Amino acid sequence: MATTVTVPSASVPSTPLLKDELDIVIPTIRNLDFLEMWRPFFQPYHLIIVQDGDPAKTIKVPEGFDYELYNRNDINRILGPKASCISFKDSACRCFGYMVSKKKYVFTIDDDCFVAKDPSGKDINALEQHIKNLLSPSTPSFFNTLYDPYREGADFVRGYPFSLREGVKTAVSHGLWLNIPDYDAPTQMVKPRERNTRYVDAVMTVPTKTLFPMCGMNLAFDRELIGPAMYFGLMGDGQPIGRYDDMWAGWCMKVICDHLNLGVKTGLPYIWHSKASNPFVNLKKEYKGIFWQEDIIPFFQKATIPKECDTVQKCYLALAEQVRAELGKIDPYFVKLADAMVTWIEAWDELNPSTAVVENGKAK
Amino acid sequence: MATTVTVPSASVPSTPLLKDELDIVIPTIRNLDFLEMWRPFFQPYHLIIVQDGDPAKTIKVPEGFDYELYNRNDINRILGPKASCISFKDSACRCFGYMVSKKKYVFTIDDDCFVAKDPSGKDINALEQHIKNLLSPSTPSFFNTLYDPYREGADFVRGYPFSLREGVKTAVSHGLWLNIPDYDAPTQMVKPRERNTRYVDAVMTVPTKTLFPMCGMNLAFDRELIGPAMYFGLMGDGQPIGRYDDMWAGWCMKVICDHLNLGVKTGLPYIWHSKASNPFVNLKKEYKGIFWQEDIIPFFQKATIPKECDTVQKCYLALAEQVRAELGKIDPYFVKLADAMVTWIEAWDELNPSTAVVENGKAK
Repeated sequence: MATTVTVPSASVPSTPLLKDELDIVIPTIRNLDFLEMWRPFFQPYHLIIVQDGDPAKTIKVPEGFDYELYNRNDINRILGPKASCISFKDSACRCFGYMVSKKKYVFTIDDDCFVAKDPSGKDINALEQHIKNLLSPSTPSFFNTLYDPYREGADFVRGYPFSLREGVKTAVSHGLWLNIPDYDAPTQMVKPRERNTRYVDAVMTVPTKTLFPMCGMNLAFDRELIGPAMYFGLMGDGQPIGRYDDMWAGWCMKVICDHLNLGVKTGLPYIWHSKASNPFVNLKKEYKGIFWQEDIIPFFQKATIPKECDTVQKCYLALAEQVRAELGKIDPYFVKLADAMVTWIEAWDELNPSTAVVENGKAK
Repeated sequence: MATTVTVPSASVPSTPLLKDELDIVIPTIRNLDFLEMWRPFFQPYHLIIVQDGDPAKTIKVPEGFDYELYNRNDINRILGPKASCISFKDSACRCFGYMVSKKKYVFTIDDDCFVAKDPSGKDINALEQHIKNLLSPSTPSFFNTLYDPYREGADFVRGYPFSLREGVKTAVSHGLWLNIPDYDAPTQMVKPRERNTRYVDAVMTVPTKTLFPMCGMNLAFDRELIGPAMYFGLMGDGQPIGRYDDMWAGWCMKVICDHLNLGVKTGLPYIWHSKASNPFVNLKKEYKGIFWQEDIIPFFQKATIPKECDTVQKCYLALAEQVRAELGKIDPYFVKLADAMVTWIEAWDELNPSTAVVENGKAK
């Protein structure tokens, strides 16, 4: 773990938003040259780098960034037997970074994502937009046709109940991608040349009781509000499935946000996604997920969390038991996943004792 | 009722979409000079003009348009005692046009709405976009983060269940407004200078079980799929409320679309809304609605239509009885409204015998 002193440059805004309250989590297997392009926006922040794959490999981080780096050996050392809940050889390992962060907010980004430009040609400060999304309320109970009503130049339209205009706290900000869209392997194969060139200038709340495919490429959230639900599951090495890590987290997280009356936004900011992963490799990772999601999604659409669950941890453990009971019928993998969900919460509470649910004076 | 022969001009596209299957319904109290700007787009279509207010007044329609015009005397003559369900001195009267149309599709627009320009400066053919929206499926069961997956350059993203990618039939296309946004009186008063300048290049499905504020200014729908639910209620002259006509239709329609598994889209196309109505006058019309909507919306959020209701008419009548029983407790107005909802369906079936629900050989 190396820490370097941050040297402010002229292009760094003088007072970066939430500078001491946000960590940037990056899962990677390669040198982080992509950070050069992000320097004006990311340099003021602390990075948590989760190195996937061979721990013997050295990951180079460009000069001037303040970071900590964890490889598999670190994860095993810190979590002990509980390290079993952290995936290996899959970007799902990133959620270890959420667990060790001590900040209120997390932004996570893939290392093949670059700075996109808005239609006027200006570089998009993705992090700044995520922070704006997280710091303004969400409106999950009723749809506003002019999109985010809290944005400059917008408001609630006629017919929007006044009692709902305060909104609810925003837990998650889901950003999008220009250039390579986040398609599954079959769609990649059918449309190898498709690029996303449409800049949709909108942020919106995903309505309550509506599920969506959450992509982990460009994502920010409030750790204090929803952190323990941001478990990216068991994927990759030794597992029958990959590339469903962020989807899994998204489904679980959304059901819990709906239960706790928290908001989830999607839309801006865009990043520039440079590299499509290999569709043949992806198909192999995904194909069980493609079948399973046909049952998983109805499961989450029907899932209800008991009223007495008033913390994310309690909600998550209740959901884990439903996963075991219901999805366990589909494949034994889901029993293993339910176990890992429980382990994840135990590990989270161990590393974050102050936010753990304390009952009878005992962390529970 | 006057009919003039349409003279095709050079600027009219050679094969306008759905030329013989769509009517344009316009409620008005003034000469329809606004049609001049719409000529290249509307001239191939048939117009149904519903004249509100004094029937003695002559409404001038620019040369070259094919139209029929109904004033209050026509409505009374055609509907007899059932004319009581059609509002007077309120744009709610437009729904009479939906009833007398014999086409599969309806587009309705206010006479203070003009052709907007897209960000490239090109005139927006709003009608063409509505038709595209109506002719492509909707996806109410699961949210697609790249918006309308059927649009060119877009698709379903990773994690979207394949079983849901066929979508469902689209019943309604709700368009938006540049310049004057559709705000209620209090918001108009607080932000008199706010203009909508943000062109959001997106069409999206309003998710199932999510209500939204449907504005009647720039709206298209499939009469065969949802027509009888498009009742704009009792508003204006002699009623305690105004400016909730489209909202009422939107809530009823959405609950029925969710029951019948039909889709509702919102977003593109934009029109240019030129004239804000007077906020003081609006406040007088709206203030009861502002209170009532706090109860009406939870009512519609909870409303369920009995399984056996398999036509729009049956759904609508079931909803009318729930309005009577539940909302009737708030104010006697809702009992009157429930009666009018029943009358509306009777009148609809009378004018549209082929689409009426036939049971035991008897229109019912």
